[in-house]
Amino acid sequence: MSFQNPVFIPGPTNMPEEIRLATYMPTIDHRSPVFGGILHPCLDGVRRVLKSETAHIFIFPSTGTGGWETTLTNTLSAGDKVLVARNGMFSHRWIDMCERHGLDVQVVDVAWGEGLPVAEYAAILKADKDHTIKAVLATHNETATGVKSDIAGVRGALDAANHPALFFVDGVSSIGSMDFRMDEWGVDVAVTGSQKGFMLPAGLAIVGFSEKARAAVESATLPRTFFDIRDMEKGYAANAFPYTPPVGLMNGLKCAIEMIEAEGLENVFARHTRIATGVRHAVEAWGLELCANAPELYSDSVSAIRTPEGFNATDIVTRADEQYGMAFGVGLGDVAGKVFRIGHLGMLTDAMMLSGLGVAEMVMKDLGLDIKLGSGVGAAQEFYRYGS
Amino acid sequence: MSFQNPVFIPGPTNMPEEIRLATYMPTIDHRSPVFGGILHPCLDGVRRVLKSETAHIFIFPSTGTGGWETTLTNTLSAGDKVLVARNGMFSHRWIDMCERHGLDVQVVDVAWGEGLPVAEYAAILKADKDHTIKAVLATHNETATGVKSDIAGVRGALDAANHPALFFVDGVSSIGSMDFRMDEWGVDVAVTGSQKGFMLPAGLAIVGFSEKARAAVESATLPRTFFDIRDMEKGYAANAFPYTPPVGLMNGLKCAIEMIEAEGLENVFARHTRIATGVRHAVEAWGLELCANAPELYSDSVSAIRTPEGFNATDIVTRADEQYGMAFGVGLGDVAGKVFRIGHLGMLTDAMMLSGLGVAEMVMKDLGLDIKLGSGVGAAQEFYRYGS
Amino acid sequence: MSFQNPVFIPGPTNMPEEIRLATYMPTIDHRSPVFGGILHPCLDGVRRVLKSETAHIFIFPSTGTGGWETTLTNTLSAGDKVLVARNGMFSHRWIDMCERHGLDVQVVDVAWGEGLPVAEYAAILKADKDHTIKAVLATHNETATGVKSDIAGVRGALDAANHPALFFVDGVSSIGSMDFRMDEWGVDVAVTGSQKGFMLPAGLAIVGFSEKARAAVESATLPRTFFDIRDMEKGYAANAFPYTPPVGLMNGLKCAIEMIEAEGLENVFARHTRIATGVRHAVEAWGLELCANAPELYSDSVSAIRTPEGFNATDIVTRADEQYGMAFGVGLGDVAGKVFRIGHLGMLTDAMMLSGLGVAEMVMKDLGLDIKLGSGVGAAQEFYRYGS
Amino acid sequence: MSFQNPVFIPGPTNMPEEIRLATYMPTIDHRSPVFGGILHPCLDGVRRVLKSETAHIFIFPSTGTGGWETTLTNTLSAGDKVLVARNGMFSHRWIDMCERHGLDVQVVDVAWGEGLPVAEYAAILKADKDHTIKAVLATHNETATGVKSDIAGVRGALDAANHPALFFVDGVSSIGSMDFRMDEWGVDVAVTGSQKGFMLPAGLAIVGFSEKARAAVESATLPRTFFDIRDMEKGYAANAFPYTPPVGLMNGLKCAIEMIEAEGLENVFARHTRIATGVRHAVEAWGLELCANAPELYSDSVSAIRTPEGFNATDIVTRADEQYGMAFGVGLGDVAGKVFRIGHLGMLTDAMMLSGLGVAEMVMKDLGLDIKLGSGVGAAQEFYRYGS
Repeated sequence: MSFQNPVFIPGPTNMPEEIRLATYMPTIDHRSPVFGGILHPCLDGVRRVLKSETAHIFIFPSTGTGGWETTLTNTLSAGDKVLVARNGMFSHRWIDMCERHGLDVQVVDVAWGEGLPVAEYAAILKADKDHTIKAVLATHNETATGVKSDIAGVRGALDAANHPALFFVDGVSSIGSMDFRMDEWGVDVAVTGSQKGFMLPAGLAIVGFSEKARAAVESATLPRTFFDIRDMEKGYAANAFPYTPPVGLMNGLKCAIEMIEAEGLENVFARHTRIATGVRHAVEAWGLELCANAPELYSDSVSAIRTPEGFNATDIVTRADEQYGMAFGVGLGDVAGKVFRIGHLGMLTDAMMLSGLGVAEMVMKDLGLDIKLGSGVGAAQEFYRYGS
Repeated sequence: MSFQNPVFIPGPTNMPEEIRLATYMPTIDHRSPVFGGILHPCLDGVRRVLKSETAHIFIFPSTGTGGWETTLTNTLSAGDKVLVARNGMFSHRWIDMCERHGLDVQVVDVAWGEGLPVAEYAAILKADKDHTIKAVLATHNETATGVKSDIAGVRGALDAANHPALFFVDGVSSIGSMDFRMDEWGVDVAVTGSQKGFMLPAGLAIVGFSEKARAAVESATLPRTFFDIRDMEKGYAANAFPYTPPVGLMNGLKCAIEMIEAEGLENVFARHTRIATGVRHAVEAWGLELCANAPELYSDSVSAIRTPEGFNATDIVTRADEQYGMAFGVGLGDVAGKVFRIGHLGMLTDAMMLSGLGVAEMVMKDLGLDIKLGSGVGAAQEFYRYGS
Repeated sequence: MSFQNPVFIPGPTNMPEEIRLATYMPTIDHRSPVFGGILHPCLDGVRRVLKSETAHIFIFPSTGTGGWETTLTNTLSAGDKVLVARNGMFSHRWIDMCERHGLDVQVVDVAWGEGLPVAEYAAILKADKDHTIKAVLATHNETATGVKSDIAGVRGALDAANHPALFFVDGVSSIGSMDFRMDEWGVDVAVTGSQKGFMLPAGLAIVGFSEKARAAVESATLPRTFFDIRDMEKGYAANAFPYTPPVGLMNGLKCAIEMIEAEGLENVFARHTRIATGVRHAVEAWGLELCANAPELYSDSVSAIRTPEGFNATDIVTRADEQYGMAFGVGLGDVAGKVFRIGHLGMLTDAMMLSGLGVAEMVMKDLGLDIKLGSGVGAAQEFYRYGS
Repeated sequence: MSFQNPVFIPGPTNMPEEIRLATYMPTIDHRSPVFGGILHPCLDGVRRVLKSETAHIFIFPSTGTGGWETTLTNTLSAGDKVLVARNGMFSHRWIDMCERHGLDVQVVDVAWGEGLPVAEYAAILKADKDHTIKAVLATHNETATGVKSDIAGVRGALDAANHPALFFVDGVSSIGSMDFRMDEWGVDVAVTGSQKGFMLPAGLAIVGFSEKARAAVESATLPRTFFDIRDMEKGYAANAFPYTPPVGLMNGLKCAIEMIEAEGLENVFARHTRIATGVRHAVEAWGLELCANAPELYSDSVSAIRTPEGFNATDIVTRADEQYGMAFGVGLGDVAGKVFRIGHLGMLTDAMMLSGLGVAEMVMKDLGLDIKLGSGVGAAQEFYRYGS
């Protein structure tokens, strides 16, 4: 029966049926012109969602992790130095990938719940007179902690130091749900996947390369074939992929972009802010706190909620699944057991969100937390009602 | 975006995707054995849902209204007298059909919100010494008022009078959601449709005929062809319909029965009672009253909720649709503008119900009713939580 | 595996996936404006397909048989005289319905394989000086024999006699596949269903009433409720049905009309003629004959093919199903065992038709008929190739 | 309209609707036990299809090309020597990948249309006394030329030389359609994708690693993260992927395996042989020749057909698409313009194949080739008829 309920994991999201049906295609000849009519609107649409005029868009049958690997292997060589902060599980994993690919990784560790350390980045970049740092990596929205970082700030640090490093941004759980400005922020590679803001199943790595990043590929010597953007580029010029494309997913992406643009990109962002704000009102009504340490860090796509000392937050997720057929997200890594997560990205309605908050309340009360039933729902309703 | 929200009309219900996909069939040869493998499990399964050992089941490409017409035209002749009470829009419509088919209709009018007048039936039947009454009609669950009537009581009235009249029961909004005992209650024709307890789209009239009702067809002279059960009977014997069958809907019905029996018929009823009870707790928390006049009349498939004098209840339905993308039911006939209805039948979850209650609260408060946000949701949560 | 093959029964047809998906809808509130946006385009589109400016279109959750009953019960009274010819199973069934509804049926029997007897109709109508004949019934395309009749000719007979009888035409297997001119031919009621030219599952009766037929409803006394066009009319005025509408099927009908009109109605007819002509070339190459007795009678939606004396034509259908997973149509009634039928209506391609002809050849050779493999396919290819 | 016709490209195949629907899933929590119930049957089922008792199965959200990269990067280090023959476009591309990953590639070029040069492999391996060759690569079925190679023979060459090299086999267009014996043939890594024998959309790389290949991963130093089988292994142990899994495709794979095993793996192979043989009879009837140079090389999943000198074979594919809405495969690389390809893998029926042959005949005749219409179809029918 659980298929009846919406999911509140921070991606994959609840898929609008229109998008899901767009992926449900019979086999076509992927070398026929029909595929070109799917491919190019996807590339153009992703570029618009990234707010870029000129980015080279590449879409691989892969996931966001593949997008990270595409970024590194197409721009860097073994031994290259990269600067990156760790403030959650996803930045941690990207660091791990850098190390496994033989990069020289300068890690800045900050507490999970904090944003990217812009001031520290600025200092390091300023000190790097010889420009040994080839790339700066940043996670826009840490899905593990519900923390949104200041990407414009990191760009500012690069600019202030007049530093030529490439700037790579993981926007997996922000792009399509929260404002992302590739050109304005001077992002060299933006990375996302299909299963978050684009409301699709997992299966696509989606990246945008600036001209500078595109140029870097010629000298980058990390080995790559599957993820080589030059093969993709040649393929696209012939309405093709260098291998068999995932036609249905691409058709779904085309549909998702149409749906986003029919609503209006800014309206999509505003809706995410509105729904997320209602959730934050509920959290406050429950007397709980977010993992994110300050309001300016609050993510509009996922809220990680701290539970009281001594309580295992994962129990909430388990009981919600087993007793109420509803999916929330567990805490990961440093905050495992300390937080549970409510994903609120994709095509949500107020009504759906209320059902999630309502179940969360029942579960927390079942588990002995001091929660007044209806309190969080009521706080969210108050906000949604005025907001509508 | 409204497709994202569940509906809370009293049918058609939210369709489980498994059932909906079962209706999504490519064309098969409906004269091939494949169709027999769909047809007979449907007939047998409906019989079990009706709690009958021997009923003759007939399924027409039609609706519940067609089921009523099947009932009348296969058992009665012009001028035959029938006894029927009017306590809501659907009993009213069945009376209208009787009149248009030239029957002599003895109507007992009771207030909308009351159940069938068992005592008055008993008196009338007792007084009908010559057995001029050929059939007694009863609506098990008045969808317009959320009133469940005492079908066993009506049977008792017939038995007490030792009256041979046929006993026809409209179970459109009860069968498959609420306990229905065709054999135990001595029902001669039970009528339902596909779009309520069977969780399908509208498009099937489903009837069960007792042996006595089956025998009546030989002498009944109301004209009929499309709805003639003898043609159906001949068709079924050859794995066919007398005309092209709605294969996909039948396959969906087969799936629905499997789903009901996998959950367990009694469990399905208990779930409906549980969810409905939560709704009734919410109504009480709101300080409102049901249209149904007494607890024993409360329907488990739909609640009709009275709004304060001078308030137009239909505004709730309109605003819920326009502002929140959620569908409730309007009041019909005598109670138009005085009640709004929350349907809670089919494959609902607690979480879905909470979203419906949450939206209802926001709408009522928007419209100036004195409703505390979260109050009804909280009352339902309290019940659902203990109940789970 | 048989789901992989197209079907060649004379309806239901192979459903284009686009249409089938249009029927695959989640539940909406059928009293909301969304339904009006489905309903009215259907009514207007059907009118255009019928080539009528003014017809009142009614769509019931039923089948073509229900459409016949709608026609009779809304326009006639018990004892009314109707004139009708029997030249196949479907005209036979309509006659049976007339008799069961107490009409005075004047039947003209002609051989199965002949068209409607226009001259005899003319003589009878001319002789009916008192206009005792209230309606003339005609089957445009006899699905059982693959015979298309001269509807304009019957209208001519009525006009020549200056006879005021209503003119009812069964266009179940012609409308949407073959040219049908309601206004030009002076048709008073045109009847069809969803599962033929409209390429949908069975489940809709679709009728068009002329003004004259619409007016007749006021004096017609045959009992009716489910099929009463006045209830429908009232419903449509409020974007509704008098009972729960089959929303998904209606949405599919809207899609089917869009698809037909995107191709162009005349192009759809021409495609049917082209594909049917290829089939007829194949039949000739096999040395077999059609049931239809003359070229002007050849149907473009179904071919009934006579097999040699002493051969059971039904064996072809059985073996095609069991050995090759392909569905053809059996002979019905007077021509049972003497013909098998190839349906070629709906959204067929040449390639699909070749697969049907290829399997028919294998089956016939398997069963000992003197068929050269590839002969019929080759004859059809020759025609399709030039025709393309 | 072309969606109505089957495709005859050598993958992706015509997807049975049952499999396609299995991929059409709503979002579930991929960290819930539900996903484990999809994952493990996939791993076990793939192992059985590979005819292995012990292979470690890994499934990536990627394509066959990603499967190649998985193979190389998990077992080899830069500078390692590999032996590989080039006899078509796909072996060519694998060689290219080896080179781009810094391997020392010893290429044996043979004519396109020939199989792998077992004798030459044997000689080279025998001569490699120091075992400098770390891996031998073999393409089981060259999709570009329709050539099936002797994998058992290559294993024999390794064994005869008592050579410890790893043995990697590309079975992308054979596995699931043609007999593949991982254990018996001593294959160390078998590679395939979702869109061929498994009848799914593209989007999965599927590999089986022998114990020996699994062990090699510990010393292999080619950089990898996305394709690292150790991360997958850890993930699987927790019913998870190291990143978001493509749940719907995995569910489709589970369904495909069930369908293959319901038919019987050997029966699936026999059906492919039967359908392919019919195609080869048609080619002979047309007076044309296969690209594959000898009967023992004939592929059962794709036939590449040589056209006469001076004729551009690609015109056949273009015209079939544009005029008849049917997809065939073009020639690639060395045989571009010289062959066209008919794919005949996946869930094909005789009837579907006849439609493909019928259209091919029309197209070839349209383009001036001396083809008798119906000749190839008739030759295939003769074979299919006896074979059925």
